[in-house]
Amino acid sequence: MSRQRGRVTLPSEEGFVRETKELMERWGADAIRDSDGTKLDAAVKALPAKIYTAYFPSRGHNEFIEQHREECPQIYLMTEFVLAQSVTLEIELLRTYYREQLDVDYLHDPHRYWQVIDRTTGEVLPPSDWRIRQQDDTVIIDNAVPWHEYTVSFLAYIQWDPVQMYNHITNDWGDKPHEIPFDVKQPHSNAFIYKAMKQWLRDNPEVDVVRFTTLFYQFTLVFNELAKEKFVDWFGYGASVSVAMLEDFSREKGYALTAEDFVDQGYYNSSFRVPSPAYLDYVDFVSRFVAAETKKLVDLVHDSGKEAMMFLGDQWIGTEPYGPYFGSIGFDAVVGSVGDGTTLRMISDIPHVKYTEGRFLPYFFPDVFHEGNDPVVEANRNWLAARRAILRKPIDRMGYGGYPSLAYKFPKFVDYVEQITDEFRDIHDHIGGASPYSGLKVAILNCWGALRTWQAFTVAHSLYSKQAYSYYGILEALSGMSVDVVFLSFDEVLEQGIDPSIDVVINAGDAYTAFSGGEVWKNAQLVERLRRWVYAGGGLIGVGEPSAVQHQGRFFQLADCFGVDKERGFSVSTDKYFNQKAEAHFITADDTAFDFGETTNHVYALYERVEILEYSNGEVHLAANRSGAGRAVYIAGLPYSPGNARLLLRSLYFAAGKEAELKRWYADNVDCAVHAYPERGVYAVVNNTNDPQSTVVYDGEGRTSVVELGPSEIVWKETDGGAAS
Amino acid sequence: MSRQRGRVTLPSEEGFVRETKELMERWGADAIRDSDGTKLDAAVKALPAKIYTAYFPSRGHNEFIEQHREECPQIYLMTEFVLAQSVTLEIELLRTYYREQLDVDYLHDPHRYWQVIDRTTGEVLPPSDWRIRQQDDTVIIDNAVPWHEYTVSFLAYIQWDPVQMYNHITNDWGDKPHEIPFDVKQPHSNAFIYKAMKQWLRDNPEVDVVRFTTLFYQFTLVFNELAKEKFVDWFGYGASVSVAMLEDFSREKGYALTAEDFVDQGYYNSSFRVPSPAYLDYVDFVSRFVAAETKKLVDLVHDSGKEAMMFLGDQWIGTEPYGPYFGSIGFDAVVGSVGDGTTLRMISDIPHVKYTEGRFLPYFFPDVFHEGNDPVVEANRNWLAARRAILRKPIDRMGYGGYPSLAYKFPKFVDYVEQITDEFRDIHDHIGGASPYSGLKVAILNCWGALRTWQAFTVAHSLYSKQAYSYYGILEALSGMSVDVVFLSFDEVLEQGIDPSIDVVINAGDAYTAFSGGEVWKNAQLVERLRRWVYAGGGLIGVGEPSAVQHQGRFFQLADCFGVDKERGFSVSTDKYFNQKAEAHFITADDTAFDFGETTNHVYALYERVEILEYSNGEVHLAANRSGAGRAVYIAGLPYSPGNARLLLRSLYFAAGKEAELKRWYADNVDCAVHAYPERGVYAVVNNTNDPQSTVVYDGEGRTSVVELGPSEIVWKETDGGAAS
Repeated sequence: MSRQRGRVTLPSEEGFVRETKELMERWGADAIRDSDGTKLDAAVKALPAKIYTAYFPSRGHNEFIEQHREECPQIYLMTEFVLAQSVTLEIELLRTYYREQLDVDYLHDPHRYWQVIDRTTGEVLPPSDWRIRQQDDTVIIDNAVPWHEYTVSFLAYIQWDPVQMYNHITNDWGDKPHEIPFDVKQPHSNAFIYKAMKQWLRDNPEVDVVRFTTLFYQFTLVFNELAKEKFVDWFGYGASVSVAMLEDFSREKGYALTAEDFVDQGYYNSSFRVPSPAYLDYVDFVSRFVAAETKKLVDLVHDSGKEAMMFLGDQWIGTEPYGPYFGSIGFDAVVGSVGDGTTLRMISDIPHVKYTEGRFLPYFFPDVFHEGNDPVVEANRNWLAARRAILRKPIDRMGYGGYPSLAYKFPKFVDYVEQITDEFRDIHDHIGGASPYSGLKVAILNCWGALRTWQAFTVAHSLYSKQAYSYYGILEALSGMSVDVVFLSFDEVLEQGIDPSIDVVINAGDAYTAFSGGEVWKNAQLVERLRRWVYAGGGLIGVGEPSAVQHQGRFFQLADCFGVDKERGFSVSTDKYFNQKAEAHFITADDTAFDFGETTNHVYALYERVEILEYSNGEVHLAANRSGAGRAVYIAGLPYSPGNARLLLRSLYFAAGKEAELKRWYADNVDCAVHAYPERGVYAVVNNTNDPQSTVVYDGEGRTSVVELGPSEIVWKETDGGAAS
Repeated sequence: MSRQRGRVTLPSEEGFVRETKELMERWGADAIRDSDGTKLDAAVKALPAKIYTAYFPSRGHNEFIEQHREECPQIYLMTEFVLAQSVTLEIELLRTYYREQLDVDYLHDPHRYWQVIDRTTGEVLPPSDWRIRQQDDTVIIDNAVPWHEYTVSFLAYIQWDPVQMYNHITNDWGDKPHEIPFDVKQPHSNAFIYKAMKQWLRDNPEVDVVRFTTLFYQFTLVFNELAKEKFVDWFGYGASVSVAMLEDFSREKGYALTAEDFVDQGYYNSSFRVPSPAYLDYVDFVSRFVAAETKKLVDLVHDSGKEAMMFLGDQWIGTEPYGPYFGSIGFDAVVGSVGDGTTLRMISDIPHVKYTEGRFLPYFFPDVFHEGNDPVVEANRNWLAARRAILRKPIDRMGYGGYPSLAYKFPKFVDYVEQITDEFRDIHDHIGGASPYSGLKVAILNCWGALRTWQAFTVAHSLYSKQAYSYYGILEALSGMSVDVVFLSFDEVLEQGIDPSIDVVINAGDAYTAFSGGEVWKNAQLVERLRRWVYAGGGLIGVGEPSAVQHQGRFFQLADCFGVDKERGFSVSTDKYFNQKAEAHFITADDTAFDFGETTNHVYALYERVEILEYSNGEVHLAANRSGAGRAVYIAGLPYSPGNARLLLRSLYFAAGKEAELKRWYADNVDCAVHAYPERGVYAVVNNTNDPQSTVVYDGEGRTSVVELGPSEIVWKETDGGAAS
């Protein structure tokens, strides 16, 4: 292929002009960015490329915020549970918190805004039952019930930006000043933010793209007394709270929020929790506020002739790219870190922007770029994971971050990125904005729906979670699969039913989480709608503990559809006879080794007609069932692997009753894939591994050919059978 | 040892006089019994032995009950869940039941006694909403809500004794008449039972012991449409119901029971279910009734100069040997089948009888006694399991069942039983009724308490249960351990606190079952009492999901004591740092391989001070924690094995804070044990395996000696160091 240029953003740094030009040329970069801690030389800024500059509207101005410490962002914190061993109990508010990050708010009446709760009974103590000893940040309960546990929920100030704090601690920055954040909700901060933005725009005429590395509210990130991470929720609205926010909320929504609405028994409304109506109201309220304030910044950027780009991370709370207000902000672009296929789709599917950009791994940091390590390994793994998703819905641009001088010392890495960037542009050239062939439309059903598009089962961006990986694999599989994916909430199903264009609904997760659904499954209307839909021919897939809530003799409320339920110890007296594996089955035809991850125990078949596809340890882990004209598949867990992606694909086609259509634009080798773009007359045969592969390829009519692929290779062909140029 | 005689019951059969005499001599039997299907010859009855004869008061008289079919026992049955696909729904009552066992009761107004329930909402339909088509046993709902599931709960007659039915089906007895049971609650049956008993006593003067093989109510045992077991609950009161019983109950207790009180969403009040107050009332009501009726029979037996013995099995429901009314019955003896140490203790600990007897395995039936099989293997396994418990609390007598002519064909088996029976008598001679040394007192805490002494975690006698074996192992370990064991209910703790003589409380089971406790853990008083007790120095052991109920930010309500909780997906955002295994620990000092059985997933340590003793797959499975002056131990599951018995023993001593006292009357080899009888001046060193063993033995002062033991050997020594004669 011929050398092309564009779609690539290169980080630069001081004293790196010649090499920047060289990398620009080799990687075809058409944009140059700075990073946290790097600046661009004038000579670099003068290169024929767009210039991105990081911008931090709500930190980095200690000279301002030190005059207005009452305008730091706030957060509701809960102390640990403390046991009363007599009638007097003292609770240290900050005992398990990092005092350099957090300070108690005594400015707003604690007896109005705080709560002391008996966690043995759940009772909120009347304010008269407790008092404060401010000099050592302690709450004293004088009439505690011995042997009950108590917590105090209190308002605190966040006095150190958590991201800078993390870098500061990790890199041992010593006496480098702590960056103090400020809250756009507060009067002085609000005025300062817009004034500072205007001045900055005037001062930086050479910048083409203002990259809002942060916006206003950090996702919840709290450190403990050892200065280590204590709580992290990439979706958490905890740090957006303030008395002003609470009061405005109360005025608009007609009711007041309490501390417990935020601390939530210590679970802090993690996205795994079934969201309370109050929390959903709060998310809506803050999102609207953030969108309005962000729009003002974006308008200023546009007024100065520049583009506004949002970084999806850190202080992104309230922007909600898949929420109802994002479009009103007017961002030109979103950039985010690409950890895998799921996070790529989380970026590339964002609506209402002109373009999306992915920041690839590895960062150019010494943890990877050091003597004796080969950064190509991580780059290849990252690229293969992302490419699966790019072929379904490409990001518009790619880039890297960190210190290019480090990367420059690894010529093989520079070569490999050259290859990747060429391949990225080549994919765009072939696809040309066309939609890929999709055999099915799949809906992920949970409490959050579209608001958490490609964000389900996530604690923090790319962070492993023991509780989540066996479900996250569903998203990762789907991110690169020849199906359309939508995210559907229970409320939508209740209000609008299930769109007839949907082939298969997936409900997955641990019982009582937001992803499985919890108490909503006692809602007869929800159950009715799903059963009616399945019996009329719909497909249903359950993973883990789908539709689970203990109610009326069932744990899985759609047990009749799945044909399985989970034994929780209540029906051990009932004989369970059905344990014969089905002879051969469409779903398991590729005979892959099963890996159900954390798996789900004690699941058994309810009916003889259930097709048991995997049975071990006296449990069913994979089963298929027919209900009326519809089909359901149960899977005990689905961590991501090529084999499990195939298992899911086959389960989807089976559930949809479209087995005959599976082998269209299809590769029989699970490590390969075929993506077709009918309106462009091309298709790609992709090797998702770094080993050579051979695969039978099925075209749109099911005609086969054998394709040999080199490591990581992607081969383009024309749909009439020729090779694409 | 010298040949002794006594404490042994021998089964005999027709035409087996000479061999019976020989076996009597060799096994030292002093009693002879018949069995189901065998009769004793006159010459056998004349032998110098007590004669036991099986008696069945409520079956075996079809000539009577065929005149009073309305007096068959009854049961509430629930149909399967049936899905309404339109507004009309027909539900076949007996579709999943065995029609030869069960018949629908139309004599008592169905619209009064039955219930039709919408299982999607839990709503009970008004009787006007359904009608009956009696000719095909069908209920018709005319205004069903489409896509809801419905059940019908109805009264049925049990027209075939389930035990005879089981034998009939299993042995293919063809047209042998079905034995029809009758209900002592009914007028004709009641009169018949006493009349028949009197006549029988007159007709059988040679009988010394009337062995009530059945009494009045069978434990719940229902068969399906394929004549296979559908539901079995060895503790179930389902088959004791009748309209007369319901009406008397209502009169006495002041409220009426409904069908749902019995069918319980299809769980039928299994003993794994947290018992409802209504069910507990019913158990109490029936037990009192059964005790009164049984006493009348026993009195008749005594009046005729014979002894009355109860068989603990089959129709034992309502006798409740550990309940408040058992003593009033006046039984002379209880006999039961010995499957292991737990079932032995279930028999030997029964109060209010003059003696207890165990029926050992194998039965003399062709399934074991056939060419090519060695019945000694099962006999040895059974004996070693039982002997552990016998050494703690012996049954007074032992015996066998079945066809002795079969056993007689296996000379090695006859030899082995000769050895066992001698050893059994030898144990009695050494113990002489003395109490064994106990180092600790342990309480098992659950919903049932003493009523289910040695009966927790049991579906049916000696039946494996996937949900139960990881807890049942606790009982099996304790049954032969040098500790005293009591069974304690939550109600007792709430009413009386925890007896100060108790060293360690064990709460074990799956969450929300009667053994873990479920909602009772929201009772602040219960939690207070346990915490107070632990902090004052008490020991607490939790197995599986102890004290579990989702409430106020905790799953284990005593998480503060255990130092661990279970992650259910709600607190995945909270960092969990504590995963360092403790270096060395008293509990794991024997370094046994861990086997947590079904285990418990996702348990994590709450505090740094928790001593983590096993950590794998990102989970804690064994941990110790100190709370005030007390200790707690968490174990993920404890199937029975010698290693796990040691693990539990060490956990108990650690929890009790009595580590220094562990090695008193102690064997360091986990396959051996020491039991001391201080008041008799003897102790036994026991090899619990069929391989030779060597062990260090610790005496009461901790002095050591080495003892070599042959396979299964038991060596008696005097506490002054000599060998016991």
